[in-house]
Amino acid sequence: MAPCCLSLFFLFLFTFASVPANSLPTFFPGAKQAKARTSKPKLPFKTHYFPQTLDHFNFQPKSSKLFHQKYLINTDYWQKGAPLFVYTGNEGDIEWFAANTGFLLDIAPKFKALLVFIEHRFYGESMPFGKHSYQSAKTLGYLTSQQAMADFAVLIRSLKQNLSSVASPVVVFGGSYGGTPILQFDKIVPWSSFYDAVSQDFKDVSLNCYEVIKGSWAELEAMSTQKEALAELSKAFRTCKSLRSTASARDWLWTAFVYTAMVNYPTQANFMKPLPAYPVQQMCKIIDKFPSRATKLSRAFAAASLYYNYSRSENCFEIEHEVDSHGLHGWDWQTCTEMVMPMTCSKESMFPPFGFNYGEFAAICQMKYGVSPRPHWITTEFGGERIRNVLKRFGSNIIFSNGMQDPWSRGGVLKNISSSIIALVTEKGAHHVDFRSSTEDDPDWLVELRKQEVGIIQKWLNEYYADLRHG
Amino acid sequence: MAPCCLSLFFLFLFTFASVPANSLPTFFPGAKQAKARTSKPKLPFKTHYFPQTLDHFNFQPKSSKLFHQKYLINTDYWQKGAPLFVYTGNEGDIEWFAANTGFLLDIAPKFKALLVFIEHRFYGESMPFGKHSYQSAKTLGYLTSQQAMADFAVLIRSLKQNLSSVASPVVVFGGSYGGTPILQFDKIVPWSSFYDAVSQDFKDVSLNCYEVIKGSWAELEAMSTQKEALAELSKAFRTCKSLRSTASARDWLWTAFVYTAMVNYPTQANFMKPLPAYPVQQMCKIIDKFPSRATKLSRAFAAASLYYNYSRSENCFEIEHEVDSHGLHGWDWQTCTEMVMPMTCSKESMFPPFGFNYGEFAAICQMKYGVSPRPHWITTEFGGERIRNVLKRFGSNIIFSNGMQDPWSRGGVLKNISSSIIALVTEKGAHHVDFRSSTEDDPDWLVELRKQEVGIIQKWLNEYYADLRHG
Repeated sequence: MAPCCLSLFFLFLFTFASVPANSLPTFFPGAKQAKARTSKPKLPFKTHYFPQTLDHFNFQPKSSKLFHQKYLINTDYWQKGAPLFVYTGNEGDIEWFAANTGFLLDIAPKFKALLVFIEHRFYGESMPFGKHSYQSAKTLGYLTSQQAMADFAVLIRSLKQNLSSVASPVVVFGGSYGGTPILQFDKIVPWSSFYDAVSQDFKDVSLNCYEVIKGSWAELEAMSTQKEALAELSKAFRTCKSLRSTASARDWLWTAFVYTAMVNYPTQANFMKPLPAYPVQQMCKIIDKFPSRATKLSRAFAAASLYYNYSRSENCFEIEHEVDSHGLHGWDWQTCTEMVMPMTCSKESMFPPFGFNYGEFAAICQMKYGVSPRPHWITTEFGGERIRNVLKRFGSNIIFSNGMQDPWSRGGVLKNISSSIIALVTEKGAHHVDFRSSTEDDPDWLVELRKQEVGIIQKWLNEYYADLRHG
Repeated sequence: MAPCCLSLFFLFLFTFASVPANSLPTFFPGAKQAKARTSKPKLPFKTHYFPQTLDHFNFQPKSSKLFHQKYLINTDYWQKGAPLFVYTGNEGDIEWFAANTGFLLDIAPKFKALLVFIEHRFYGESMPFGKHSYQSAKTLGYLTSQQAMADFAVLIRSLKQNLSSVASPVVVFGGSYGGTPILQFDKIVPWSSFYDAVSQDFKDVSLNCYEVIKGSWAELEAMSTQKEALAELSKAFRTCKSLRSTASARDWLWTAFVYTAMVNYPTQANFMKPLPAYPVQQMCKIIDKFPSRATKLSRAFAAASLYYNYSRSENCFEIEHEVDSHGLHGWDWQTCTEMVMPMTCSKESMFPPFGFNYGEFAAICQMKYGVSPRPHWITTEFGGERIRNVLKRFGSNIIFSNGMQDPWSRGGVLKNISSSIIALVTEKGAHHVDFRSSTEDDPDWLVELRKQEVGIIQKWLNEYYADLRHG
């Protein structure tokens, strides 16, 4: 549906993985998981606001209401007629994604590209109903993926016209939800694949590490039946305030392991939190060097502390009061409507086994928002089933880039589909690592991956310009 | 977006072409144009109603409201695993389209295909708000092409599941709006192309015929300044009731010439009205055989009478009171929202010259419905600009079938785009003539055209089943 002539989706999937709360999986608690003390980075972009249509698929009088959609532009390297590189924003502030997608800035000079980072509706400053945007299903109803895609298309088209460069090719970049794990829906990939992949990351580093984490949940569970358990746990976990439930401690640990697997980058980085290079290895080092008489829970806590306090800035942990500093809380609504990705923990995973009960999930959504999920809608709208047979005939010019450290990779396309639908898979890659600015410490495989991507983009652009010349 | 694996669009465009009313073009007065005395035909289909979601792109509580979408099914020839042939309904009662699309019934046995004719929302019985559906923009707002496409996709997916035949290939057939003239929007084809094409049809038969019609408007215009003109005109035009304006007579003539060009079929047929084979030729015969002293207007009237009274069932004409017997009145709303197809009459056309003023058009829509058209939305959503360059990479398995007698063909794709995006163009073809049941009188080119279509469909199905076997 995009008006562009090339589209390129990077599937280094990021998104907010999750933990079971009250024994029920809430897949993307996001809102509570992202705490950052860092001030907003200075970015080489100008901020604009586009008058965007509220409802592209309806013509009721209120559908035509306009809201201000934020977008960031860099024209430093652009020449008229040269490509537009568009980042289609996902579930958070656009600056946060721009700051973590230095790849586009790195390659813009080579292509003389214009860079555009477009914020997704209902995130950051792009609030259709201002501070009332999250008030109820009546306002949140307009937060859907198809409306967001239409926003992008309308904005890109208008931008090209304003630039008097309507024939410029457009290369679209998306990561995580913005370049969605399209096979994670319905019953396409096994529901246990996500947590199995997290577990595999830890097992690959150290079997002991995996077993300690796997054993820690029973210890935590046993504590919950003891008197004074919460006080003891609060002390052991160095919480700022006394814990009200052991489930919070479980969720806190769970989150640390899942997000660390996702961002198991080969260099020091600060995406969700500041972390050292290969943080899974570092966590397992912490676990493995403990004397064997130490409890598994204390070792799991020490490992999780790496995630929450690598910068050593925390004197205590706000386990039950994390702050949403990246503006992610809309994701919870999206999982209750379109983004239904069932997940389970198998016995082989390092997490406590749990299943997925659709009825209970739907009841929670009904309770929270008064909304019923449409669990088959995403695959009806965007496909996914028999993707190889379908896409090889109906698509082209897509890179599916996945790093196998990232548990979301299991919902990605991992094999080439055609000569122009290409899967780039890196064993050591993590959640959209290729989107990050290059650094001197980048390993060879990462340098090579980005080089491949640049080569493919260059080839497609050459084809596009050749097409244009020959009509 | 369709969940299918093959899609096939026939672009034998039908839709309700138009005349300027009060000097402003209202492109699809449809509602007043279709009068049929014929009773509903008996069709070999079972009628079903699908509980359809009102708003696929919103999750406000009322979006989840269901309405009953009508569809017709024929399972006489079907075998499990065999294809589904789906006709995506357009702006009228689905029975009417089913009755005029005998091609599907003709070819079903060969393919062991299941036939499904799906009614478009807000037409026929598929009224989301019952008799209040057309009450205002608040209800009509849900009448959009993308909602209709989503309806089709959801229904097809559900149907395949209910048939336990999810891997069945789906071949989609659409005519006219249901297989839209995608280049008719924005500034892709010249705005004068439609009426130039109508004029060309008449000119090709007889230059005199073209010139008589071209000259008749001035005679009509001159009458409107005379005393007693309306009474005289009412008599000359054999109206049942006295005319209230000469514009009605002009629109009535205009409609006859436009629709006759569209349905200039090689055999006797009854789509809009009962008509003889090659009705444009017949009209010109009537005009040419008049003595030259007869006024041009009287000759134009005699020709138009062929369109309105070929069956000789009319004793007088209801020029200002045509009945909408095919349920077409929603089209007017669609042209005021998404389906903005600017049209003009050039000096070379046989119609009085007129331009297109977007501001005036928008003002009329605002007055009628309180709605503002979004004139660039269709091309943003579905593309159209630089279609060759785009579709050759991003699409496949489409037949664009156009008959050059049909003025809508000028907004169609008339050249092959790739080995699987094929343009079938017939010089003597008219508005989706290939969709009609075969008859003994069919000329060779029509027999050959359908044969080509069947061959292409067969090839694609073979490819699909081969893909399925080899994963």
